[in-house]
Amino acid sequence: MPIDPRFFAIQGAVTLGTWAEMAGGVLSGKADKQVTGVAAAGQAGPSDVCYFEGRPADGAQVSDQAAACLVTSEAASHLPSGVVSLICERPKLTHARICAKLFRVKPVFSESGGIAPGAAVHKTAEVSHGAVICDGAAIGEGTRIGPGATIGPGVQIGRKCQIGSHVSIACALLGDHVKLEAGVRIGQAGFGVVAGPEGAEDIPQLGRVILQDHVTIGANSTVDRGAFEDTIIGERTKIDNLCHIGHNVIIGRSVAIAAFGGISGSCSIGDGARLGGRAGVADHVRIGVGASLAAGAGVFRDIPDGETWGGTPAKPLREYMREVAWVGKQIRKRKSQ
Amino acid sequence: MPIDPRFFAIQGAVTLGTWAEMAGGVLSGKADKQVTGVAAAGQAGPSDVCYFEGRPADGAQVSDQAAACLVTSEAASHLPSGVVSLICERPKLTHARICAKLFRVKPVFSESGGIAPGAAVHKTAEVSHGAVICDGAAIGEGTRIGPGATIGPGVQIGRKCQIGSHVSIACALLGDHVKLEAGVRIGQAGFGVVAGPEGAEDIPQLGRVILQDHVTIGANSTVDRGAFEDTIIGERTKIDNLCHIGHNVIIGRSVAIAAFGGISGSCSIGDGARLGGRAGVADHVRIGVGASLAAGAGVFRDIPDGETWGGTPAKPLREYMREVAWVGKQIRKRKSQ
Amino acid sequence: MPIDPRFFAIQGAVTLGTWAEMAGGVLSGKADKQVTGVAAAGQAGPSDVCYFEGRPADGAQVSDQAAACLVTSEAASHLPSGVVSLICERPKLTHARICAKLFRVKPVFSESGGIAPGAAVHKTAEVSHGAVICDGAAIGEGTRIGPGATIGPGVQIGRKCQIGSHVSIACALLGDHVKLEAGVRIGQAGFGVVAGPEGAEDIPQLGRVILQDHVTIGANSTVDRGAFEDTIIGERTKIDNLCHIGHNVIIGRSVAIAAFGGISGSCSIGDGARLGGRAGVADHVRIGVGASLAAGAGVFRDIPDGETWGGTPAKPLREYMREVAWVGKQIRKRKSQ
Repeated sequence: MPIDPRFFAIQGAVTLGTWAEMAGGVLSGKADKQVTGVAAAGQAGPSDVCYFEGRPADGAQVSDQAAACLVTSEAASHLPSGVVSLICERPKLTHARICAKLFRVKPVFSESGGIAPGAAVHKTAEVSHGAVICDGAAIGEGTRIGPGATIGPGVQIGRKCQIGSHVSIACALLGDHVKLEAGVRIGQAGFGVVAGPEGAEDIPQLGRVILQDHVTIGANSTVDRGAFEDTIIGERTKIDNLCHIGHNVIIGRSVAIAAFGGISGSCSIGDGARLGGRAGVADHVRIGVGASLAAGAGVFRDIPDGETWGGTPAKPLREYMREVAWVGKQIRKRKSQ
Repeated sequence: MPIDPRFFAIQGAVTLGTWAEMAGGVLSGKADKQVTGVAAAGQAGPSDVCYFEGRPADGAQVSDQAAACLVTSEAASHLPSGVVSLICERPKLTHARICAKLFRVKPVFSESGGIAPGAAVHKTAEVSHGAVICDGAAIGEGTRIGPGATIGPGVQIGRKCQIGSHVSIACALLGDHVKLEAGVRIGQAGFGVVAGPEGAEDIPQLGRVILQDHVTIGANSTVDRGAFEDTIIGERTKIDNLCHIGHNVIIGRSVAIAAFGGISGSCSIGDGARLGGRAGVADHVRIGVGASLAAGAGVFRDIPDGETWGGTPAKPLREYMREVAWVGKQIRKRKSQ
Repeated sequence: MPIDPRFFAIQGAVTLGTWAEMAGGVLSGKADKQVTGVAAAGQAGPSDVCYFEGRPADGAQVSDQAAACLVTSEAASHLPSGVVSLICERPKLTHARICAKLFRVKPVFSESGGIAPGAAVHKTAEVSHGAVICDGAAIGEGTRIGPGATIGPGVQIGRKCQIGSHVSIACALLGDHVKLEAGVRIGQAGFGVVAGPEGAEDIPQLGRVILQDHVTIGANSTVDRGAFEDTIIGERTKIDNLCHIGHNVIIGRSVAIAAFGGISGSCSIGDGARLGGRAGVADHVRIGVGASLAAGAGVFRDIPDGETWGGTPAKPLREYMREVAWVGKQIRKRKSQ
């Protein structure tokens, strides 16, 4: 996905040559090709640089659209033809470090407080004293921004939104009628860690957050921006307090997530799904359309459309309840003998 | 319960006629009767309008004190006599939408920062630069308000309270010696969702939060205001970080709730109860006086006074521990065979 | 441990005589000995006053280095010789109440906003409008402080740190390259409660937080200061959103803790340990070097180095998975019969 320049400062004109030089690799031809994006190996498009780190033979799974791929010498020959190989020893770490140098998130910062000169605030919008609106941000008709809220550079907020006290928004696009209660955090870096020679290092998070119309998010919940893709929450989805939505998650329409709901990175949640309190979903899992999770469910597998699951690890709720009942019965039997 | 005008703006003089007109119903007589409140069906008093949506025959369970009840035509004949029926197709949705029009929460907002002219701050109270105190709020003797805290319209705070940095308080009454650590959120809308024709809609939350003397609440915890009733936390109750107290919850005195405790809507927790870390309680559950929950317990049923429960779904702790031990033993037996 | 005067105001010169008088005890000699610290019974050093409350014979476990110990008359004779006994009826409560009078945390407060005259901010550091830096705080070279962040009295922040919007820091020392996302809370009072005659009382929390170089902490996470000791997070440890680190916890280097991780008081977590989402650890537990916890694990026992555990109560993951599979099989058997 191309890096969005509203949210990230791009250090110079980035070409395949830039990447090759920084990765310490050799590049034959194409060095002046502009590459404006980064991506996961499987989703990379024609202007994206990705990395591959895994069993060499699996290199064939790298998108054949990718402009280039950081890769070990063992795996390089397995990449699809047409994808430029940039050979290096630790592709994931190298990709992260180069991204950190080339793309810097624009900081949420204010010299003078209030509305920056380069922000566009509709004349009917109300911005409380103490709120900060950074350059390039836009606030739509009738939207209200509460005291102390911070609206980062380039953030776009639609019409008739209600942004509560102390909300932080960065790297995000919001539709109309979005309601964020106090202390909501939108668009901070997701949790990505790679092992380096001296210990753990943060992986740059270069995506965005998109909140569609009529989304409501409860107090102190957090929605991380995507790593390479976007984190997206669909129309009329309602999220309770103290929930966490990880990077690259895609949530459909009219989903309800009760307090302490946790959606790990790259999950998808179908339209109309309902998550009880403290339901958690492991990364890359798909929750089907209209599916339900019982309170406290811990989900590690895809859930088909319309099913109700519970327990940890979650399974169909009826099955789980039968297990719970059966175990209880065995104990009572033993006691009564 | 009557709507508290310190926290909610009431749109004009609300009468039974107003409701009837907005619900699209027909009303014979009584149209000019003032109705200042709203309530759940079972608790409605003589000036409250409630709704009923369920099996028609259960309409008899609506409070016979209610001024009026939004109800389907099938259920109308089952309401207690004396309760005015306002017939409509989707009573819950209609009630929510009318509430949203008639009663608006007064926004936490500040034109000029600092202490609003209509706020009453005791001369010995200390209000940090950067805090916002809205009109109608009152701050008692010796109370300290930290930087960036926002005290909404009409909020009453007692004596010798300590309100930390970035705390948000709205729609709430606080006693004396209340201590709120940084980032606590008091009085935002609880999580109420109703299905509408275009998807999920928020249900207006029209109650308050009451924190009694010597309540302490840890960093980034959230206490939602009631839907129709109040959310109440009793004297000397101590709540750790990142806890969530849902709407209409009633907590007794000297209760201890460790980190990540989650109390769903309309629960009651008896005096002196102790909840271990990450204990969760499903909605409408009663936890008895002096009861204890083990860390991680997920409670779906009432717990009698003085008992200790654990596990998910929670049961008496000894029973749960026996089950855990028994299952472990079966596995070890099979391995050794 | 000595009380750190950068963070706590000490009420006069505290001597053994002060303690004896406040505890209502009798003291023979040594009354003018300065005692600058407090400690848990087992760790007390030569200038610390501790308390002991337990089986009288266990009084022998009190550190023989302690300057003095609040103790019941029954247990006094069991203390190590050389430790001054201060006899009182409820040692823990008395200790807490005396601490509350002698040592007061310096409040995070600002008369005029911005940088206090007694703060030291490096000329290359960037402090956003709306941030508050209290007296005695120091901000290192190239560090950036976001809008609305509050840096309490005496807090020391190293070089090239990134402190996000609305972060609160008190009673803490930060190394270099520390990154705190929006809404992180560092250094508030931990959760300590003691029963008093009128109900629960807060126990003063007199320690600090130490964050070493390259620590990253996600949005809305909380790290409490120690009770008597420090809470310490080691180099390059990476913590996700909405995590809670309790008082006195010691976390090693390059530890990864995913969202909703909860570490109760006085735990230790070894270098390189990895905690999945929603993993929780009960108090005083030791997680070994390089150990892993599955998502949702609830740990009540020490975990040896390098092992992977899961479930609640947690056990070795393979064992837990076998149990889960076996129970599922019993149910399927019964269904098919």
